[in-house]
Amino acid sequence: MEPMKNCEILLRARYVLTQDATRTVLENAAVAVDHGRIVGVGPSDAMPYDADAVRDLGDAMLLPGLVNAHTHAAMTFLRGVADDLPLLEWLEQKIFPLEASLTADIVRASSLLGFAEMLCTGTTACQDMYLFEGDVLDAARTAGIRCLAGEGVFLFPSASCKDWRQALDLTRERARVLSRDERLAVSVCPHSVYTTDEEILRACRDLSEKEGLRLHIHLAETRDETQRCLASYNERPVERCERLGLLDVPCTLAHVVDVTDDELEVLARHPLATVAHNPSSNMKLGSGSAPVPAMLDRGVAVALGTDGPASNNQLNMFAEMGRAALLHKTNGRPTVTPAQKVLDMATLAGANALGMADAGRIIEGAPADIIALDLNAPNMRPMYNPVSHAVYAATGHETVMTMVNGEILYDRGRFTRFNYADLCAEMDSIRDYVRKKAGLS
Amino acid sequence: MEPMKNCEILLRARYVLTQDATRTVLENAAVAVDHGRIVGVGPSDAMPYDADAVRDLGDAMLLPGLVNAHTHAAMTFLRGVADDLPLLEWLEQKIFPLEASLTADIVRASSLLGFAEMLCTGTTACQDMYLFEGDVLDAARTAGIRCLAGEGVFLFPSASCKDWRQALDLTRERARVLSRDERLAVSVCPHSVYTTDEEILRACRDLSEKEGLRLHIHLAETRDETQRCLASYNERPVERCERLGLLDVPCTLAHVVDVTDDELEVLARHPLATVAHNPSSNMKLGSGSAPVPAMLDRGVAVALGTDGPASNNQLNMFAEMGRAALLHKTNGRPTVTPAQKVLDMATLAGANALGMADAGRIIEGAPADIIALDLNAPNMRPMYNPVSHAVYAATGHETVMTMVNGEILYDRGRFTRFNYADLCAEMDSIRDYVRKKAGLS
Repeated sequence: MEPMKNCEILLRARYVLTQDATRTVLENAAVAVDHGRIVGVGPSDAMPYDADAVRDLGDAMLLPGLVNAHTHAAMTFLRGVADDLPLLEWLEQKIFPLEASLTADIVRASSLLGFAEMLCTGTTACQDMYLFEGDVLDAARTAGIRCLAGEGVFLFPSASCKDWRQALDLTRERARVLSRDERLAVSVCPHSVYTTDEEILRACRDLSEKEGLRLHIHLAETRDETQRCLASYNERPVERCERLGLLDVPCTLAHVVDVTDDELEVLARHPLATVAHNPSSNMKLGSGSAPVPAMLDRGVAVALGTDGPASNNQLNMFAEMGRAALLHKTNGRPTVTPAQKVLDMATLAGANALGMADAGRIIEGAPADIIALDLNAPNMRPMYNPVSHAVYAATGHETVMTMVNGEILYDRGRFTRFNYADLCAEMDSIRDYVRKKAGLS
Repeated sequence: MEPMKNCEILLRARYVLTQDATRTVLENAAVAVDHGRIVGVGPSDAMPYDADAVRDLGDAMLLPGLVNAHTHAAMTFLRGVADDLPLLEWLEQKIFPLEASLTADIVRASSLLGFAEMLCTGTTACQDMYLFEGDVLDAARTAGIRCLAGEGVFLFPSASCKDWRQALDLTRERARVLSRDERLAVSVCPHSVYTTDEEILRACRDLSEKEGLRLHIHLAETRDETQRCLASYNERPVERCERLGLLDVPCTLAHVVDVTDDELEVLARHPLATVAHNPSSNMKLGSGSAPVPAMLDRGVAVALGTDGPASNNQLNMFAEMGRAALLHKTNGRPTVTPAQKVLDMATLAGANALGMADAGRIIEGAPADIIALDLNAPNMRPMYNPVSHAVYAATGHETVMTMVNGEILYDRGRFTRFNYADLCAEMDSIRDYVRKKAGLS
């Protein structure tokens, strides 16, 4: 008999979706966690561990925590302020004016609300781009979630930076401070090709390369972006990024809706690039449907994101998986984006896009980022195929436990790191402030 | 001061979405319920009611219960058995063979599971079509949900009827038994134009007219259906229904995806017809996107349905509202199917399609079909616009109370009419039976 080993916590559950190389689903299994890592996975009744704590989730499935590969968590403060408008009117008449009166305090509280929503719907890591990103990182530290965060870099002044050089200085400085942080990291975030210029994009690329930071940009989101890019620079967005070397550093390209087959070939030739697909936002803003099946066919890495809550309006990766799985099938293609591939996008590909190549799976040695979905809800019954239920049947609110780095951050309705009621009160004040600014009251 | 009146129950909440003629949203309001009806709606602190019971939902919104206008609730027994397959392979190799071994007991338990899912995600009424529909009605009686149910009528024998005449006999008989039932009713359900013939369709139409029963049919779901109909009868599905008079009785047409502009004009000229739009199912099976914005523009009545859980895989009208709101915007039309119109589809239009013209709203005199959504979940904060949150932010699991006909059927996780644990055990046995039949174990 194997000698007993010690571990901090042993999780037991009816199913474990390992997302290992062969996508093994274990029944009646257990996961041993120690010092933030998974140290063992196996049958519940034959785990050679003497655990400090045993947590039996019962009729539940354990999954790797989902990874939100493109978001603006702080935009919860704008959730539902303006819907159903044309994109430019929405951005220029609603969102930008409200963002002009943004403060660090709003960003901190609103990000924490966003992270609360992520944690209670099974997301353990996210890639964020916004303003006052130091405060986003503060909120992520409070929540305990993993966050790769970047200050938006623009050609024009933002509410948080007087110019793009300041945004890059902040990026460099935060990266230095966080260089050894287990959960937080910093990326270089040129906002897009239409809100920057060549000098900025080159500076971003150079900073990324010099400091070993990942790069994150909105790319080819709409046909309008392509037209603007062609009109200004006589090149298409993907072409521009390729020429300026942005695709040669580890990067996440958010949206990638308006692309040609040739551009997909370009992306396929750049293995450091991951597309972050945001179906809800693309649908809601009328941007179109990213050619995800063609991307997958060509071997382009595709992760999944919610985008910000102003254009979704959720930060719920289960809702996003369902929509991603459905959207691409609509016109006569029921076999594309099958459940397993969509789950891969939300776990393995997302983890990779955040620079956590060993995460997104429940195997020995991986970071202990694990969620538990309760299977007692009527929509999770009967059970034939846990992967199908995770993608097609779950709403996200079946999440009963969320663990990051071996620490339980959400436990049956309770956030373990912060006072949720106080946060709600703070958000009520922010809402009143926004209503005044927007002339809604 | 107004004299105090008595009522059985007074519901108080932060918001009440009345869905009245001007779509009034009340803040800090109350709803008085008596003998299954709403008897008063107004400001919480000035309601002249002396209630037998007061239920303060606190930070919640009350909405009219959602109406699922097209479903096959019993198909929960197939949830997740087969996904991501081409439509014909899915139907003919997976669904039909499993349905061939269907029994009344499976239908009763599986329908109850479906109704449980509906009740706990805010649906108070549904329109169902399937086999062994008497058992569906039994399950609806157990659950307490409103149900307009019809036995599927086919050209060929089904698991429940040896021929179409028997299906119509059952329909007539059940309608007679239920003629005065407050919550249950019967419709005439020719399955589709491609699984019936002219004699059957005429007989269905005649029965509908003679007995005053609503008619419910799958129509123009796919291009393939149109091709089959053209090949067999040299007419398109909508044309066939028009010619045979099916559109002249109160009817629900499920799907209506593959239609021309001329056919939309035909539908607009038939005010007794309601389209039941099923975005999830249409996407998942690759059927296409029904031209809902064009329907609404022309004044065609459009309700919303989940279809069956084998092709969704949920029976969650909040998920369905979100997808309906997003799907039609995808290609450059962010202003179509705005939140209020989608909520109208899921309430007013749905109620009308079920023959409950006075339901789907919270006004004096309407049936007391009311749900409460908890607003404490992170995704429901902050609150600017309750209609936006109901359609774009809610997952459905925010439902904390579901009332039908003045009776609370679901209350913070508990079903009041039946033992949910027993039902789950029964579904486990059914799953084992299905797995054996499908060769899955």
